[in-house]
Amino acid sequence: VGGVIRYVAVVGPGETASAEQCAIAADVGRLLAEAGCVVVTGGLGGVMAAAIRGCEAAGGTSVGLLPGDDRTAAPVAASIAVPTGLGELRNGLVVRAADAVIAIGGSWGTASEVALAMRTGRPTVAIDGWRFLDSGGIEVPVPQATDARDAVAAVLC
Amino acid sequence: VGGVIRYVAVVGPGETASAEQCAIAADVGRLLAEAGCVVVTGGLGGVMAAAIRGCEAAGGTSVGLLPGDDRTAAPVAASIAVPTGLGELRNGLVVRAADAVIAIGGSWGTASEVALAMRTGRPTVAIDGWRFLDSGGIEVPVPQATDARDAVAAVLC
Amino acid sequence: VGGVIRYVAVVGPGETASAEQCAIAADVGRLLAEAGCVVVTGGLGGVMAAAIRGCEAAGGTSVGLLPGDDRTAAPVAASIAVPTGLGELRNGLVVRAADAVIAIGGSWGTASEVALAMRTGRPTVAIDGWRFLDSGGIEVPVPQATDARDAVAAVLC
Amino acid sequence: VGGVIRYVAVVGPGETASAEQCAIAADVGRLLAEAGCVVVTGGLGGVMAAAIRGCEAAGGTSVGLLPGDDRTAAPVAASIAVPTGLGELRNGLVVRAADAVIAIGGSWGTASEVALAMRTGRPTVAIDGWRFLDSGGIEVPVPQATDARDAVAAVLC
Repeated sequence: VGGVIRYVAVVGPGETASAEQCAIAADVGRLLAEAGCVVVTGGLGGVMAAAIRGCEAAGGTSVGLLPGDDRTAAPVAASIAVPTGLGELRNGLVVRAADAVIAIGGSWGTASEVALAMRTGRPTVAIDGWRFLDSGGIEVPVPQATDARDAVAAVLC
Repeated sequence: VGGVIRYVAVVGPGETASAEQCAIAADVGRLLAEAGCVVVTGGLGGVMAAAIRGCEAAGGTSVGLLPGDDRTAAPVAASIAVPTGLGELRNGLVVRAADAVIAIGGSWGTASEVALAMRTGRPTVAIDGWRFLDSGGIEVPVPQATDARDAVAAVLC
Repeated sequence: VGGVIRYVAVVGPGETASAEQCAIAADVGRLLAEAGCVVVTGGLGGVMAAAIRGCEAAGGTSVGLLPGDDRTAAPVAASIAVPTGLGELRNGLVVRAADAVIAIGGSWGTASEVALAMRTGRPTVAIDGWRFLDSGGIEVPVPQATDARDAVAAVLC
Repeated sequence: VGGVIRYVAVVGPGETASAEQCAIAADVGRLLAEAGCVVVTGGLGGVMAAAIRGCEAAGGTSVGLLPGDDRTAAPVAASIAVPTGLGELRNGLVVRAADAVIAIGGSWGTASEVALAMRTGRPTVAIDGWRFLDSGGIEVPVPQATDARDAVAAVLC
């Protein structure tokens, strides 16, 4: 198993996700399932719920690492829902549980996950994501993809 | 105590901090100590160590929340050093332990802390920090300060 | 889903587990799978590995919440292996992830999990487990079962 | 600093602590302060609050690692109060933050802390504490002390 990307986190906004971002997330979830990957998410709505739905509809395995103590807070049923009770520290657990990270859309929570993924050297790719400029105005690059297929290919290759 | 800013996290790069960033961090640590605040950091080098040094030299109280299990990994002596063993999840604990956050310089670890601070609505100010653009290229603003005095004033007022 | 016991943690010693305890754990894993439950463990050897093996052999779903950062440290393949990087704090996460706890055999790690399960009011049952006496020598009771079938019935009913 | 015991956790029941246990905890807090140790607690009432009070009255330094997100939930003012937001997982953080552990009285939460302290090999001593019997009825010994002075001497020597 060592070295093979098998667990991929799909991170992105919850309530504030756009319909288009959710559609992309559903595609990413499906493609990851078809590739035999486990989809890891933060277990809530928006991009997270869409990725779980896409994965489950394709017969895949998904994991929701919820911030609260209540398993039933998950809006869609992941294969496995873990109420971590860690609050926003579960963002770090989502990243740590994954071999690679696909970010769809942006929010401060998503930015924390992308930053931790980059910090820990995980293969990371963003679709429609935030960009990061250092204090000199130079971009600190996060690999970008234009669609679900490209994003999945980028982290699996 | 409720509502008063008393614990302020000073976050920033470790090894990759510049001399100027460390000088600012030392000033911030000193000013926070003089204002009667507790300085919370991640306990390692660079900006973290400088903030602790500035705080301690001014007779203040500092806390280092270390990522590892070994208290002696702290390069400078905070008043209190806590080996959290949480790895990079301690970034979230640094933010949570603080009523406000001052970021000096930038790195992926620092970006994760700024993002969590913004996510959780804590007063946050950055000096010489990274900037964040949404997918449309519009800046998602983090309050900026130009020097230590401004930064401390911004989070304490 | 609310109120139904679906996720059951099986906790017990790793290296120091006896062959008999592992046989019981395998039976518990199988029975939980047959009852449609997800088996949650700490992901390492001994009782944990046996419960995963029993669950997986019966076509069930198992989760290993590993203490370290390395997914490949799991001696047997759970359906889902999560490297939490939390060290022994993952004991608390194992309990929190579960609706009920079955302890098989005893060790200090196992005792910490039983204590947290009792502390948080989860249905808990022990087979061949440690007993707890208060300072007056009076037993603080943990429900006991004599075999795998009784234990599973105790937490599911 | 390596090897010297400087941070000592004082653990024990909150609401259910007896007046006598609180009196002992206050003595332990004072003696630790006089020995130059930092007193680490879970930050709530009962034994925790008494140890903090004893330590602070003697001019020492105390740390409260609170389970919730609200610093003001601490009933007495520790030198440093950290709202960890980890719930009962902060029990493990209290142990990890300490070089040695003194338990006063018993409860399930306290038992989890004693178990984690024994599991991780920290010097541990109990006053009026629970006892642990293995499945054969043989005691798994935790060092016991009869009063505050003995307990402090036991972990500092």
